[in-house]
Amino acid sequence: MIRARYLILFTFVICSTFSWSQEDKTAFFIKDIYNYTLENGQCDQWLSYLSDTIGGRLTGSKNATKAVDYTFSELEKIPIVDRAWQQACMVPKWERGDKEIVKVEYKNKDNQLFTEELASLALGNTIGSGPNGVRGQIVEVFGLDTLDKLGRENIEGKIVFYNRPMNPQRINTGHAYGEAVDQRVHGASRASKYGAKGSLIRSVTTLNDDLPHTGVQTYAADIKPIPSLAISTNDANKLSALLKETTVSAFIKNNSQMKDSVISHNVIAEIKGSEFPDEIILVGGHLDSWDVGGGAHDDGAGCVHAMQVIATLNALRYKPKRTIRCVLFMNEENGLGGGKAYAKASNANGEFHLAAIESDSGGFTPRGFACSAHPDVFKPFLSNLQKFDEFLDPYDLYLKAGGGGADIGPLKSQKGLLIGFKPDGQRYFDFHHTSADVFENVNVRELRLGAAAITSLIYLIDQNGL
Amino acid sequence: MIRARYLILFTFVICSTFSWSQEDKTAFFIKDIYNYTLENGQCDQWLSYLSDTIGGRLTGSKNATKAVDYTFSELEKIPIVDRAWQQACMVPKWERGDKEIVKVEYKNKDNQLFTEELASLALGNTIGSGPNGVRGQIVEVFGLDTLDKLGRENIEGKIVFYNRPMNPQRINTGHAYGEAVDQRVHGASRASKYGAKGSLIRSVTTLNDDLPHTGVQTYAADIKPIPSLAISTNDANKLSALLKETTVSAFIKNNSQMKDSVISHNVIAEIKGSEFPDEIILVGGHLDSWDVGGGAHDDGAGCVHAMQVIATLNALRYKPKRTIRCVLFMNEENGLGGGKAYAKASNANGEFHLAAIESDSGGFTPRGFACSAHPDVFKPFLSNLQKFDEFLDPYDLYLKAGGGGADIGPLKSQKGLLIGFKPDGQRYFDFHHTSADVFENVNVRELRLGAAAITSLIYLIDQNGL
Repeated sequence: MIRARYLILFTFVICSTFSWSQEDKTAFFIKDIYNYTLENGQCDQWLSYLSDTIGGRLTGSKNATKAVDYTFSELEKIPIVDRAWQQACMVPKWERGDKEIVKVEYKNKDNQLFTEELASLALGNTIGSGPNGVRGQIVEVFGLDTLDKLGRENIEGKIVFYNRPMNPQRINTGHAYGEAVDQRVHGASRASKYGAKGSLIRSVTTLNDDLPHTGVQTYAADIKPIPSLAISTNDANKLSALLKETTVSAFIKNNSQMKDSVISHNVIAEIKGSEFPDEIILVGGHLDSWDVGGGAHDDGAGCVHAMQVIATLNALRYKPKRTIRCVLFMNEENGLGGGKAYAKASNANGEFHLAAIESDSGGFTPRGFACSAHPDVFKPFLSNLQKFDEFLDPYDLYLKAGGGGADIGPLKSQKGLLIGFKPDGQRYFDFHHTSADVFENVNVRELRLGAAAITSLIYLIDQNGL
Repeated sequence: MIRARYLILFTFVICSTFSWSQEDKTAFFIKDIYNYTLENGQCDQWLSYLSDTIGGRLTGSKNATKAVDYTFSELEKIPIVDRAWQQACMVPKWERGDKEIVKVEYKNKDNQLFTEELASLALGNTIGSGPNGVRGQIVEVFGLDTLDKLGRENIEGKIVFYNRPMNPQRINTGHAYGEAVDQRVHGASRASKYGAKGSLIRSVTTLNDDLPHTGVQTYAADIKPIPSLAISTNDANKLSALLKETTVSAFIKNNSQMKDSVISHNVIAEIKGSEFPDEIILVGGHLDSWDVGGGAHDDGAGCVHAMQVIATLNALRYKPKRTIRCVLFMNEENGLGGGKAYAKASNANGEFHLAAIESDSGGFTPRGFACSAHPDVFKPFLSNLQKFDEFLDPYDLYLKAGGGGADIGPLKSQKGLLIGFKPDGQRYFDFHHTSADVFENVNVRELRLGAAAITSLIYLIDQNGL
């Protein structure tokens, strides 16, 4: 407190001596944002509650409802918030069921049968195997293309094992994830097309360890659903080596099931703009997570980043020119029900989102922001981005083309700027969709720096437009 | 292997079709450096051995000798190395002794005596308290200046408690460390000047936790040495609160001692340059660490970064134009014996270090490099740095003014460029000089990225000079 008072005094003395340029004021306010967030940020306390106290927040689960209620009550009580509400959305309700079982079975040279259980997780939206499980010979492939080449004669009645790793040579781990994840999302459908009984996926991570990574998979409309599970990278490596020596069968048992859709909610808190209330600047993350772990980096961090923006603007007594809206989306992981419902309601209300920033890449040290927009408007946006550099550069932050976010994607037709927050991505896929995505693996300084970076960009857009 | 073969084939086909510019070749080789290091780097195995198997490597200790022998034998066997040697240097031999004890003693309102032990570590080079310990009333100060203001009448016979925290508002944690560390380095001497019996230092970290952080302290020539220990930030906060309520005494007992200096060694491995053998490019870290923890980030990471440079150039069959020398310095932490001996021998041999790169900021995601040089030559260097940008930019690496390294500092008179490797610094001081600085807290991808970044800069300097 003493230091804050000195700062105000110092500011007063300085202000009465010099006349401050707009640039100086802007830089000074951003420093205030950083100072407040680094020293007094509460995002880590919120994240601890979301991740440790509530835990995994699978769409449609009781924990997801608890997270809605908790974040709503936290946001509602921040004085600067003019309006907070819960926005209903229909979402799928998938349940993992009992602990899934994946066993490999093979015979050694002396014709003895060996059985070994692998570390596995059912993928989101998968069906169950039925009470007797599914058993079949394993066919290893390294992508959807190689599966196509094998065709029905090599696949029918078997279990497909997708084993193309995330490319460790990629510096941008997000790109490496993008290259590998088609196996997880579409693998089961494609295998079923050729008559496979089930599919196993190498976990999508560059790390070699024993943690299976879940994540969404989808069934194409015209195929028979088959069970789809991920195994750890260590087990994938061992299985691959074994397949070079002998024939291996897999036994899969899980009772995952998709239930009827249910109503859930996005959580929204808004500060009304004083000059341009119809220009909305959205900041958001997604409230749902996978059921394993605590959804700390994915995407508790994004939610508390967005909440911290509101808390920081409140603490600094900022009066935004534009409407600033914190949106915690439901169901990003396995359906995007919240994002779609939000855009639909927004369009129906004739709203315009000047900018929407999503944080959904973890709570790591910020590197910058990447943006995209409807082709009609992107060029003029791009030619103007450099005006932000002066204020972002001192914090080692870039703002460049090439990003957005899943939840804000449906807002594209409103022709505003869609922005993805980009923290350092080297550790993200160590935790992503695993039981290790817990608060303990989040560094508080890095988390707070992320919130400060996002708040700064929102402040700059609010002050100057795009 | 299959992929490597395809790559060579692809390269061959491309090369026979196009003619490649020098820029293309340079960019391609840097990509090779990254690919090799990310996929096949062995720096993490070396680091695991140094940190987990050998452990803390206090200067003068048996572990330090083991580390010399291990890294020497690992470097010696890399085929590209023309010469490897151990360079003798005199170093101090300080010993922590038995587990140190810091207790606080105070009376409550009912005059009952309470005693509580704090989490503490003797600071490097401190003397012991003597077998009976040292007891005195605690005087809290927030820096050397406030101590001076209190003067002898308030300090004599007491124990000074330095409690100025690292400023959490600083984005650059290295700068915040620099601002706070004078208390640790000079605190005991300054307190002794006013007759204090001992000094306690708030651990130099932004984290509030129970881990004490050790680190070097030095005695001024003309003062009576007194015991100097660090306490954890949690305990510092509790003690500070207690001091607002009542008088508190401390009891300090440690039997640390400085023994006679001993001979130790720097470890050096060299690849002779083919065109300019007299222009040396040095890459190094320091082999010694504190005795608590495993010296993983500080500075096992820097050592294995430097070793990886040699291993990667070997794997890529690179023939350097200039002499590339990997130097693992001894005794950075409490004396700089290795760095001084290296520079002295180098000067005696009439050597010239065109550039020296030190990695001593941990094994985190690389951000770039910061450099300095003798004033006579720095300006011309600075005006040329931009030529590196084209190749470093794609890897999000900067090269800017303002850095160097403790061990390479004594080379300044040779008028080459001194360069500090700058990884992300947000987590460094969570582990720095503590029992938590172990291999488990190093991320392998981040470590390898650091080695790739350093190798790339060395390659660029080797190719083009400065």
